[in-house]
Amino acid sequence: MSFRLYDSARRQIVPFEPLRAGEVSIYHCGLTVQSAPHLGHIRKEVVFDVLRRWLTYSGLSVTVVANVTDIDDKILEKSAEAGVPWYAHAYRFERELHTAYSALGCLPPTYEPRATGHIPEMLELTAVLIERGHAYVAADGSGDVYFDVRSWPTYGELSGQRVDEMEAAADADPRGKRDPRDFALWKGHKPGEPVTASWPSPWGRGRPGWHLECSAMAGKYLGTEFDIHGGGIDLKFPHHENELAQSRAAGHPFARHWMHNAWVTAAGEKMSKSLGNGALVSEVVKTYPARAVRLYLLAPHYRSAIEFSDTSLTEATAQLARIDTFLERGTAELGPMIDPATTSAPALPDAFADAMDDDLGTPGAMAVLFDTLKDGNKAADAGDEATFASAHRAVLAMLGVLGLDPAAPEWADAHAADDLRPVVDGLVTALLEQRQQARTRKDWSAADAIRDHLAAIGLKVTDTPTGPRWSLEN
Amino acid sequence: MSFRLYDSARRQIVPFEPLRAGEVSIYHCGLTVQSAPHLGHIRKEVVFDVLRRWLTYSGLSVTVVANVTDIDDKILEKSAEAGVPWYAHAYRFERELHTAYSALGCLPPTYEPRATGHIPEMLELTAVLIERGHAYVAADGSGDVYFDVRSWPTYGELSGQRVDEMEAAADADPRGKRDPRDFALWKGHKPGEPVTASWPSPWGRGRPGWHLECSAMAGKYLGTEFDIHGGGIDLKFPHHENELAQSRAAGHPFARHWMHNAWVTAAGEKMSKSLGNGALVSEVVKTYPARAVRLYLLAPHYRSAIEFSDTSLTEATAQLARIDTFLERGTAELGPMIDPATTSAPALPDAFADAMDDDLGTPGAMAVLFDTLKDGNKAADAGDEATFASAHRAVLAMLGVLGLDPAAPEWADAHAADDLRPVVDGLVTALLEQRQQARTRKDWSAADAIRDHLAAIGLKVTDTPTGPRWSLEN
Repeated sequence: MSFRLYDSARRQIVPFEPLRAGEVSIYHCGLTVQSAPHLGHIRKEVVFDVLRRWLTYSGLSVTVVANVTDIDDKILEKSAEAGVPWYAHAYRFERELHTAYSALGCLPPTYEPRATGHIPEMLELTAVLIERGHAYVAADGSGDVYFDVRSWPTYGELSGQRVDEMEAAADADPRGKRDPRDFALWKGHKPGEPVTASWPSPWGRGRPGWHLECSAMAGKYLGTEFDIHGGGIDLKFPHHENELAQSRAAGHPFARHWMHNAWVTAAGEKMSKSLGNGALVSEVVKTYPARAVRLYLLAPHYRSAIEFSDTSLTEATAQLARIDTFLERGTAELGPMIDPATTSAPALPDAFADAMDDDLGTPGAMAVLFDTLKDGNKAADAGDEATFASAHRAVLAMLGVLGLDPAAPEWADAHAADDLRPVVDGLVTALLEQRQQARTRKDWSAADAIRDHLAAIGLKVTDTPTGPRWSLEN
Repeated sequence: MSFRLYDSARRQIVPFEPLRAGEVSIYHCGLTVQSAPHLGHIRKEVVFDVLRRWLTYSGLSVTVVANVTDIDDKILEKSAEAGVPWYAHAYRFERELHTAYSALGCLPPTYEPRATGHIPEMLELTAVLIERGHAYVAADGSGDVYFDVRSWPTYGELSGQRVDEMEAAADADPRGKRDPRDFALWKGHKPGEPVTASWPSPWGRGRPGWHLECSAMAGKYLGTEFDIHGGGIDLKFPHHENELAQSRAAGHPFARHWMHNAWVTAAGEKMSKSLGNGALVSEVVKTYPARAVRLYLLAPHYRSAIEFSDTSLTEATAQLARIDTFLERGTAELGPMIDPATTSAPALPDAFADAMDDDLGTPGAMAVLFDTLKDGNKAADAGDEATFASAHRAVLAMLGVLGLDPAAPEWADAHAADDLRPVVDGLVTALLEQRQQARTRKDWSAADAIRDHLAAIGLKVTDTPTGPRWSLEN
């Protein structure tokens, strides 16, 4: 296995060593489905989608579990504001999340558990922690159960903090806690909260704490030890720190590698709904092609922040157009030489693989992509079909790994316009024939009128050996 | 409330009397997500989608809960055959179900609970039934818990059967049962079944019985009494009979009305995966426009079987084309007279409302739709714009109720081709201009060549006062 990644726990790039040869198990924390996903949320989906594609390409059998947190304080608050049941609120945004990640070409996870669907597993884990002396029932009669951070000597190891220097945990009334940093595993039902948002437990009716959910779900679907745990960098503390502590305290080795992607920022601040600076995925894809948005999110390294910028999205759109023009040129000029049915398996450039193996280095990988594309175009200009065809295959293979191959099934929806393409082809051919006839009869004004018409429509027509090709100008 | 429906429990058409004025709560049994949905599955979604739309239009606030059964014997079998975990198998087909019902313009339910997410609720219900003497732990040590049908005097009331005449329940080994008709509420874990498919219970690890799931989920989200319980007619017995018995035996009044839709048949047999006669939704919508498939499923009354037929689907496609041509003609000829921003609320014909109020009589409602359309076209031919506009508004309102309005958000995906439509408009205009100039200069062969070109492309062009309009011929 030549893949290396930056392990957030060890704070260095380490060789990736799967628990079971030939397999990899990945858990990444999905959204708390309280509002519509913005670019900051979806960056995580895109990053882990490329990780999964790269490991699959590298020959591993990949299992991905990404949860949906469908109960928490914010969901209860926001659904009450909206006047809908909390579960209907959560379900609505779960669907919006699906729409957003599908729109950006992310493959669905192997499984997507909902937190509220795993109460028995969470109760079992909590009972184990109490039994082992790492959790306790709050002394204030609230029905809360807390993790006892002082009981776990390595608490703070993931985020590199010492307990004494940490801030108090945000959840709940501190009166029942032994230490303000103790965090809730189980939250006793409060008067005024919906009864449907509480479940019976040995400690009274209540609902799970956020951190507990992911430990229980990761453990159920990936086992007590698994390969990679991921999420946005904002989850490293306290969420992942707490997951790690409670899982290890329960006797589970838990994740072998931790991987965190950086934020999307707007004016330097983390993009977030509450700051009102969130660019909703559903809005962005109205302005820019979805594949361009994906390319934009993959252009920087996943551990670098991305400052939201229309300029960069416009650049990504132009880069995407270069890619698609190159692909179409290949289809038009190479024909059977690039027919997947007759050509051998695509050759991924070594430099691309090296970049991806080096902590999912998409910036280096994209540089290889665009260099190959440039060389391919040069070869095409020079009539060197063999080199052009080889570059074309390589570009398609790289696009496949990056999830940007326009012919892949995940982009099928983007092709609903395909029915009209042959119509446009036919009309353009007919018009060009009219223009040719006008030229033949030296009717320059008619020929010019046709040219002007095409320009006014926004159609750019290029003559090629195989006939005219058209593209839409923006 | 003027809505009447056939109540499968009372076996007659009854006035619909909502439990709470102005509200209606509907539960319908979703798929066991073991394979890709076919037309037979999706008919239920379309029927209950129209029910929901009609009650919403009638001024009620509608809550719809439709579950997903994500664990059962078949899911365990089929996932094992496919070599994937049962939950990944279920999740894959849950997503295919979403794709299928969205493709046919069905609005998502208010909530879509998964069976495995409601183990605590099922355990509570089972405990109540044991306590009340209506359920017992199997005597054979299997860990199964059965409902005691002899303990419930009205067992059989929904399907109109006497217990002594019923067949034995299909589930599990009969050795632990008091009566062969007793059905499983809880199934003890069997060696060889995945541990992840079992949960702790007071009776040992196990998994829920199918019937229990729906009683628990309906009760949680809609309360112990709710308005309408629906599903395919094949669910009436044993599934709904058993739901009813166990819910009432637990002290819940349960559903006030029962509504069952008939099958889609193929060569007279119920369409089903196992018979190999299932027309997959994903395939059918490749051949026929999705809205035509929806129209086809709504043309017969929901309690009549639909024999699968390409002829009928082709007819539905032609009917849809008539509708769309009518709508486009209105847009082209009426302009601001039908602008939603300036016209008053659409008037739904009384005859349409009467048909819908009479047990969701879509055949009668569609007859009104096509009569109105015909009258509208006649008025348009006669230059009677006021009548045309009024018919146009009425048709749009009826299409909205039936979920067939092409401008509604649920059909937005079908409009991905819209970007190319103005291009085709521009090209057609340019070509017709060339044809006109050819005629002016008496160049008949050029004019004919353009006409032939348009025909070869499959474009039908009609001259209208506001310019040429084109449509694609199939």
